[in-house]
Amino acid sequence: MINRPALGVFPGEDQPKRVHSVVSQIAPCLPKINLMMCGACANEQAFKNVFIAYQRKKRGKKDFTDEEKHTAVINQPPGAPNLCILSFAGAFHGRTTGALATTHTKFIHKIDFPSLDWPVAHFPLYKYPLGEHERENAVEDKKSLAQVEDLIATYNKKDTPVAGVIVEPIQSEGGNNEASPKYFQELQKIVKKNNAYLVFDEVQTGGGGTGKFWCHEYFDLPVPPDAVTFSKKFCLGGYFHSDELTPDKPFRVFNTWMGDPGKVIMLETIIRVMREQDLLDNVQEAGARLKCGLFELEEEFSEIMNSVRGPGTFLAFNIVKPELRDTVLQKLLQKGVLCGGCGDLGIRFRPALIFQKHHAEIVLDKLREVLKEVNC
Amino acid sequence: MINRPALGVFPGEDQPKRVHSVVSQIAPCLPKINLMMCGACANEQAFKNVFIAYQRKKRGKKDFTDEEKHTAVINQPPGAPNLCILSFAGAFHGRTTGALATTHTKFIHKIDFPSLDWPVAHFPLYKYPLGEHERENAVEDKKSLAQVEDLIATYNKKDTPVAGVIVEPIQSEGGNNEASPKYFQELQKIVKKNNAYLVFDEVQTGGGGTGKFWCHEYFDLPVPPDAVTFSKKFCLGGYFHSDELTPDKPFRVFNTWMGDPGKVIMLETIIRVMREQDLLDNVQEAGARLKCGLFELEEEFSEIMNSVRGPGTFLAFNIVKPELRDTVLQKLLQKGVLCGGCGDLGIRFRPALIFQKHHAEIVLDKLREVLKEVNC
Repeated sequence: MINRPALGVFPGEDQPKRVHSVVSQIAPCLPKINLMMCGACANEQAFKNVFIAYQRKKRGKKDFTDEEKHTAVINQPPGAPNLCILSFAGAFHGRTTGALATTHTKFIHKIDFPSLDWPVAHFPLYKYPLGEHERENAVEDKKSLAQVEDLIATYNKKDTPVAGVIVEPIQSEGGNNEASPKYFQELQKIVKKNNAYLVFDEVQTGGGGTGKFWCHEYFDLPVPPDAVTFSKKFCLGGYFHSDELTPDKPFRVFNTWMGDPGKVIMLETIIRVMREQDLLDNVQEAGARLKCGLFELEEEFSEIMNSVRGPGTFLAFNIVKPELRDTVLQKLLQKGVLCGGCGDLGIRFRPALIFQKHHAEIVLDKLREVLKEVNC
Repeated sequence: MINRPALGVFPGEDQPKRVHSVVSQIAPCLPKINLMMCGACANEQAFKNVFIAYQRKKRGKKDFTDEEKHTAVINQPPGAPNLCILSFAGAFHGRTTGALATTHTKFIHKIDFPSLDWPVAHFPLYKYPLGEHERENAVEDKKSLAQVEDLIATYNKKDTPVAGVIVEPIQSEGGNNEASPKYFQELQKIVKKNNAYLVFDEVQTGGGGTGKFWCHEYFDLPVPPDAVTFSKKFCLGGYFHSDELTPDKPFRVFNTWMGDPGKVIMLETIIRVMREQDLLDNVQEAGARLKCGLFELEEEFSEIMNSVRGPGTFLAFNIVKPELRDTVLQKLLQKGVLCGGCGDLGIRFRPALIFQKHHAEIVLDKLREVLKEVNC
């Protein structure tokens, strides 16, 4: 805890054991893990694993050519090939150049920074309550999936093949935008059909807030995704990936730190406490109570509040106007309830895993007070 | 130490004080600091400060246009403008997409990854001993500086202006390649003349190994560089920058973690111990002894060893052939001396700051044994 060793070069004797213990307890059916320090770096490095695997498939058993070796060093194709990662409007995947090229939330995150010409597909925007809008929402799914297929075809045609697709199980920064299990099953099919790889960014959704350890567990995918990235609740960053995404040579995905052993000890403890205190069950129960109360408020204040959504305590609702949304956030804060804004209209909950039913009651009382105040 | 707060959102009450205490003790004549977790992220974010300042100069007092706001989100100009950072052949600045676009050491770090068309200039490659090659080395300086000017002109002309130049005070991974104070003074002039910004990457050279806290202190620059990035010995990452490089609006350079408060406590302690134990003086003394011994060995084994170079204990020498260099490294390790390879021929020393004269004697004895063995 009081040192930061260069793990990439000198992993301590117990480091592989500790990492393995983490993997074996929380891995989303993926055998390999790579540790970083933040979500952006996790996505950046996961993209590399994707590019390596994509090019290996193309190259077969041939070695790198001299031309590839030479051009790679000076940023030119074929060594630095025109490949891309497809992402979605409203996505947030971090703020380093590669991660930022897949981030499309607010202009203030991106303006004045050069970027990469990578494709951006429409993400489904559902109407709520879901039960009353099945038809419209299915149309949204189709619209998004058709665009993914079109963009893959377009970019493959213009010699910038789509090597991977990155997606959040729930778009968090973008507005707590959900898509259905069926949508993600179809998305995975399209990605596989096109020889690309699917990366789930669980930086916000991972770690228990949704009531499952990984949010994509809700999607009943027939096979696991190719990579799952994480950070935030894990106190470090990193990603799980398949054997197929393992680089074939050392030092291709590498850095000095490769995480931080102190943070791995913290993660081990987080996982142990989650288990001992049944925190996933707690999230499900507290979340159910909170969501139920939000539905009641949505009915009571239907002129200004709608679209209650989300699993576990990973909940959100909309306020009809952006300025009014900001006022509600402000007033909640004054009453001691800290929520976040997301998208233009969303208010999102991100309580700790120890948030319980009686906390939900307090939040709901305070929210009712605020809604009454602003609804005069 | 047992928590990792989201400093970007909720800095603890004492965090600004701690950060200020670090700044006031070690800042390289630059007033602002931004903390990250690694060198790559430090460079990535410093590039953003550069791009922001460059575009602000161009835009004047006008606000962003709607077109800029709209196009930025989808990675297209003018919102995501064609700007670039010039870097040098043999440079290493990290492994995330933006940092990697300025890294040009080994193909294995870059092959198969899409990159940005950014200019790469020749870095001076000196002959040693310096005193005997003043003329040739001055030619190297000129060659490099002329290429920097040419590339800036070329990229400005093809509408991808050079907003910044990043350079290591000593190219580390690339071979412990030094350039003269005069070279860096001229480089700074060229950068200023072209309205660009100069970033020193002191990730390897910063923190005392050269006998000064910052290696660029050796260059007697008339004014400070625009930004100085660091990591490694600092146990976290980050960068100092000028007032001019300060973003004009919040959330433009930002992330969840903004470093790690535990690591700032460690850095405070590192700085205190360096001062209490006069470690910079120690590095100068131990380095002088080690370098003197290396000169002797270079004379004794001139058929296989040459080009002893570097300040403080940040020293290196060459072995005439790559395979022999690897053998020497291997044999040193077997005798308990851990050195690193750099470039094709280099062997570099990176001892801790507490490395003393008597350690230098041990290293020199072991190195003499190895050189004798391989010189048979």
